[in-house]
Amino acid sequence: MSERSEPSTTAPKARLLTGDRPTGPLHLGHLLGSLQSRVAMQDSHECFLIVADLHTLTTRPERERIAELPRNVRAIVLDLLSVGIDPSKSTIYLQSGVPAVYDLAILLQMLIPASHLRSLASIAQMAKIAGVDDERMSLGLLGYPVLQAADILMARAQLIPVGGDNLAHVEIAREVAQLFNEMYADVFPLPEGQASRVPMLPGIGPDGPAASKMSKSAGNTINLGDPAEVVAQKLRTLSGSRLRAFIDALFDDPAQAEAMSAEHRAGQLSDAAAHEQLIQATEALLAPLRERRAAFEADDGLIEEILVDGTIRAREVAYATLQQVREAMGLEPLWKGLIDVAERRALARKKPY
Amino acid sequence: MSERSEPSTTAPKARLLTGDRPTGPLHLGHLLGSLQSRVAMQDSHECFLIVADLHTLTTRPERERIAELPRNVRAIVLDLLSVGIDPSKSTIYLQSGVPAVYDLAILLQMLIPASHLRSLASIAQMAKIAGVDDERMSLGLLGYPVLQAADILMARAQLIPVGGDNLAHVEIAREVAQLFNEMYADVFPLPEGQASRVPMLPGIGPDGPAASKMSKSAGNTINLGDPAEVVAQKLRTLSGSRLRAFIDALFDDPAQAEAMSAEHRAGQLSDAAAHEQLIQATEALLAPLRERRAAFEADDGLIEEILVDGTIRAREVAYATLQQVREAMGLEPLWKGLIDVAERRALARKKPY
Repeated sequence: MSERSEPSTTAPKARLLTGDRPTGPLHLGHLLGSLQSRVAMQDSHECFLIVADLHTLTTRPERERIAELPRNVRAIVLDLLSVGIDPSKSTIYLQSGVPAVYDLAILLQMLIPASHLRSLASIAQMAKIAGVDDERMSLGLLGYPVLQAADILMARAQLIPVGGDNLAHVEIAREVAQLFNEMYADVFPLPEGQASRVPMLPGIGPDGPAASKMSKSAGNTINLGDPAEVVAQKLRTLSGSRLRAFIDALFDDPAQAEAMSAEHRAGQLSDAAAHEQLIQATEALLAPLRERRAAFEADDGLIEEILVDGTIRAREVAYATLQQVREAMGLEPLWKGLIDVAERRALARKKPY
Repeated sequence: MSERSEPSTTAPKARLLTGDRPTGPLHLGHLLGSLQSRVAMQDSHECFLIVADLHTLTTRPERERIAELPRNVRAIVLDLLSVGIDPSKSTIYLQSGVPAVYDLAILLQMLIPASHLRSLASIAQMAKIAGVDDERMSLGLLGYPVLQAADILMARAQLIPVGGDNLAHVEIAREVAQLFNEMYADVFPLPEGQASRVPMLPGIGPDGPAASKMSKSAGNTINLGDPAEVVAQKLRTLSGSRLRAFIDALFDDPAQAEAMSAEHRAGQLSDAAAHEQLIQATEALLAPLRERRAAFEADDGLIEEILVDGTIRAREVAYATLQQVREAMGLEPLWKGLIDVAERRALARKKPY
């Protein structure tokens, strides 16, 4: 007690949780928008990366869509590993493989007014993209932010890097956590959203009003798994302001990017010349990914093992949180009380007199 | 194969599920409205009796209310045993002790439009009784019928005796079951609601506009655990049409009840004389309950043991159903596929060459 201890190297790191719905392969927009920063934060944070298959059910519950999950889930784990997520540092896990999350979601649903959720633009947007009109929107879609809150809170995560349109959901998680802590006991750290810092990458294709954002649903992506020649071919479709948006996003040095953009705008840099520079910059990013991807793919069963191990790890964390939640609410004492009395009775029966 | 077998005595009985929210002691209205028929159906049906503690959270999530659950849960199990529910025939279980129900509820939420639930009068009524205005209604309360559907469907129950105001919820369960069977596989029998046949019993107290129904929330009940003198005292508060409603409900013989009612209406049977006959009829019902109640209470830990054993039995049933659900949806193949590959890898590593 006489000396202050050295700054401990084993001090617990803040938990971070983020992830993806397994609806298709990850692309260059994901890499620049979130994957690079995930890799960078692996050492400073304890990272939980969720493969959010249950969230896909909120807009795609059809059997055929669920049948696509095994392939999509595997693809996303491989994408994560290829960008440099290290499973010895980060926990990659399958949402539907962590049963405690269902319990937590149902319990948290008791705390949040349905009207708060109905007013979220993000939910209306998801419904619109899925082609679901308001009358047919499922309770599951309305409850999406609460299921997401359960994911975040089960990990007791503090930092939640998200796309800008998802910050409102982290706010819901924070609101629920705050309310829970006030009503029952101080169980949850309050999660903070962190919006991606990179400007949105437009989609490939010639300049025009459509597809201002690279997205799976628009089918205008450069996927992380695309071979070099496909990437080059896709980049060569760019022109005008969209081409310049790529330049801005892909060159690390802002001065260089700005100079190139200005030259292109002034007609001093041709599309073709800009394409070649873009291809070079993109390949500098993607070539190492392809190498890691090939190595993981060659190691039969490794991807599945990593996901299974991560899910088991997430289960342990989730179960521990659920126990705390049940304890704080009084549900655990209820059950424990019953068990204790029943056990005492069983013991008493064994006594001869 | 040459002869038709005798009608088998081991043919599986249809499952029945019904139950109560543990918000206070059961009363005479419950006895006449549903408990007597539960006892009668114990031999013809496989009965699941849910003590629906999670449902209380939809309107009473506060910690103080949850702290009342241990006492209320025990009281309701004792009430059930006292009316003649036989734990060797019927499964009495605690809803929050069956984790598979949470999973199932979340999965079923993906199938039901939120707008269907918003239009239910029963939900608005529950919110009103709980003093919750529309803006503050929790997602949990909106989802109440889906949680109830999960209870019903996890037991693969076919017959659901309910109070009339709850038939709409069985319809939701039926709708969800039908949709699930169409979308994925024929997992669920379609549940049928069965409304209580006995007319609603009014509350005690003198005749008047208020408290036309005996209910815990109105505080106008004759509880099954009330001592004889308390019951008599409460019955003596009745007069007018409410007194006659008691006569109609309590005398098994309709002719006798009708004659008595007519005499009372005509002023030929005094309130006091009617009270004595009512007291006698009520005691004929309640005296055997008191005897069984005393016996169960004297056997230390028996009530808890019965509830724990029932909950463990319900868990097994629920888990088996959940496995079928996950299999049908494709979630189990997803997880199983990962496990299989990961296990093959683990095995391959053990081989020397």
